[in-house]
Amino acid sequence: MRLILVPAVLMLFVDTALSDVDDLRSEANSIFNAIPYAPPKISDNSFNPAKVELGKMLFFDARLSASRTISCNSCHNIGAGGTDNLPKSIGYGGQEGRRNAPTVFNSIFNIALFWDGRARLLRDQAKMPIQAANEMNNTPEDVVATVSSMPGYVEMFTKAFPDQANPVTFDNVTKALELFQTTLITPDSAFDRFLGGNDDAMDPKQLRGLRKFIDHNCVACHRGTNVGGNAFLPFGLLRTPDAKVRPVEDHGRMEITGRLLHDYVFRVAPLRNVARTAPYFHSGAVWDLHEAVRIMAKSQLNATFSDEDVDDIVAFLKSLTGRPPRITYPMLPTRTEATPKPRN
Amino acid sequence: MRLILVPAVLMLFVDTALSDVDDLRSEANSIFNAIPYAPPKISDNSFNPAKVELGKMLFFDARLSASRTISCNSCHNIGAGGTDNLPKSIGYGGQEGRRNAPTVFNSIFNIALFWDGRARLLRDQAKMPIQAANEMNNTPEDVVATVSSMPGYVEMFTKAFPDQANPVTFDNVTKALELFQTTLITPDSAFDRFLGGNDDAMDPKQLRGLRKFIDHNCVACHRGTNVGGNAFLPFGLLRTPDAKVRPVEDHGRMEITGRLLHDYVFRVAPLRNVARTAPYFHSGAVWDLHEAVRIMAKSQLNATFSDEDVDDIVAFLKSLTGRPPRITYPMLPTRTEATPKPRN
Repeated sequence: MRLILVPAVLMLFVDTALSDVDDLRSEANSIFNAIPYAPPKISDNSFNPAKVELGKMLFFDARLSASRTISCNSCHNIGAGGTDNLPKSIGYGGQEGRRNAPTVFNSIFNIALFWDGRARLLRDQAKMPIQAANEMNNTPEDVVATVSSMPGYVEMFTKAFPDQANPVTFDNVTKALELFQTTLITPDSAFDRFLGGNDDAMDPKQLRGLRKFIDHNCVACHRGTNVGGNAFLPFGLLRTPDAKVRPVEDHGRMEITGRLLHDYVFRVAPLRNVARTAPYFHSGAVWDLHEAVRIMAKSQLNATFSDEDVDDIVAFLKSLTGRPPRITYPMLPTRTEATPKPRN
Repeated sequence: MRLILVPAVLMLFVDTALSDVDDLRSEANSIFNAIPYAPPKISDNSFNPAKVELGKMLFFDARLSASRTISCNSCHNIGAGGTDNLPKSIGYGGQEGRRNAPTVFNSIFNIALFWDGRARLLRDQAKMPIQAANEMNNTPEDVVATVSSMPGYVEMFTKAFPDQANPVTFDNVTKALELFQTTLITPDSAFDRFLGGNDDAMDPKQLRGLRKFIDHNCVACHRGTNVGGNAFLPFGLLRTPDAKVRPVEDHGRMEITGRLLHDYVFRVAPLRNVARTAPYFHSGAVWDLHEAVRIMAKSQLNATFSDEDVDDIVAFLKSLTGRPPRITYPMLPTRTEATPKPRN
């Protein structure tokens, strides 16, 4: 009889554990969405492989900057989690940027772009760093003159926008960049495989971390496809963070809307691939993910998480690292005598 | 009778033309070598795919520089003919380099590295920009501390150097970079296909250009696999170039050897992919390939080429553009708390 009882007891134990995991999965699926395997379709910018390829060329081409030394990839590095892993990016003439560069990965799933959300669409976003004096410091006229001067680019624009008589425009530069960026998504993270029904995808510590991430109400803000990135909220909701982490002079979204309501409001940080995107916060002041979690707990929830809770939540955050896109480095068109030269 | 004569005359004409082309090919094959399709083997650095992959990661990793903003690829851009297409590269803190960045493509076929040839091997070369104050401004200690801090790198070094107990060394960083660079070769240019027996690879103008390149004796210096790159000679052999093109204060190889014989001596510029690597000369002062040919004719041969000769030679030089390597952008290892931070 004892030989029969043992497996029965084990069965019961396994059933309970599975049931807990299933409950957690159901709850998680009501809060989050997996990163899809295919690029999402977007409005007013139809999919076209030539347009994606053109966008990739532009993304890697430093000739979009005045000095011809800075490409999109310089600060949103495809090989480094879609960021530059610097507190703040270094732009034209060695100038330091004002805020930490957000990752380009999965940016299509954000409600808006930039820490202050000042661009609704990726194609609007793309216009800004190209022209910012402390970033690429270029002009739309120079960008168009540059790409127009190279037959290799003109041919790509013609293929990318086959219905247009004059496809080489600044708007089309940004549309190609936008479409390419829709392909920079990172599916297949342990978390996404868990959401999809795989019981072995996340380890017990990561599952505990997810449980705590929900129970501590981190998910009030960090939810949806990007585990964040889809709302605007004050940084320092309940307690003001240290001025090193939230510099007093950076008023966030208020600088865009002019509304006092938006003082120190920022787009909730998307947490996909967060283990790859140090340093953290708009200030880039914090390198350690544990410390970032503690700061969030205090400033947004007025809570002090135990070391074990912080550890578990960090383990969960590491399960958000997805499969990066496989990118073949583009061969850029050759300049001609008409191509404008670098300006220092 | 006239109807029969015409094809006979045409046959004769074609035969003569083919015979000219065959003579030109024979002569060219005695002066030049085609770029091989496979990376050449090198001494004291055995081929190993993991080592190539590691070298690629290091080549693209800006964390080899003090500021974490400059990678090998910043100045030797795989997508841009293996150069940065700048007169002089921009390094640490926005400093301008002293000389134009040579292409990394086919560099394994050069007699030595740098304009002054101060490194014999690519693995010696790699140590210099990493440490140069106006380039990556880093130290071997920091490089080793950086790669050692990341399990992703340690694993790659272990695979790349399987016989070594302690493979994470600065020497091995440069050996991996060297081996990766042996793969950065550009076979299959129109010129190489011509050398190999393809009569349609080069057009008539390019063939005339090759004929003139030989007959004007450009091949006294520009010969071998890289159409240059295998000898040291004075720039200004017969006539001193303009000081904008050959600045008086840059004494070239004499600065290395201390021998007056080497005043203004430089490594003969390798001309593979030269149409992709503007601007030209160690000064990077000349953007137009036609002008570069005229300057060379005057300074090295004391000759003034006709416009037609210059045009034909430029057409030939364009036949030296090969098939660039297909590179999948590497996903770089994630930092840890032990990884040293950027220094500005």
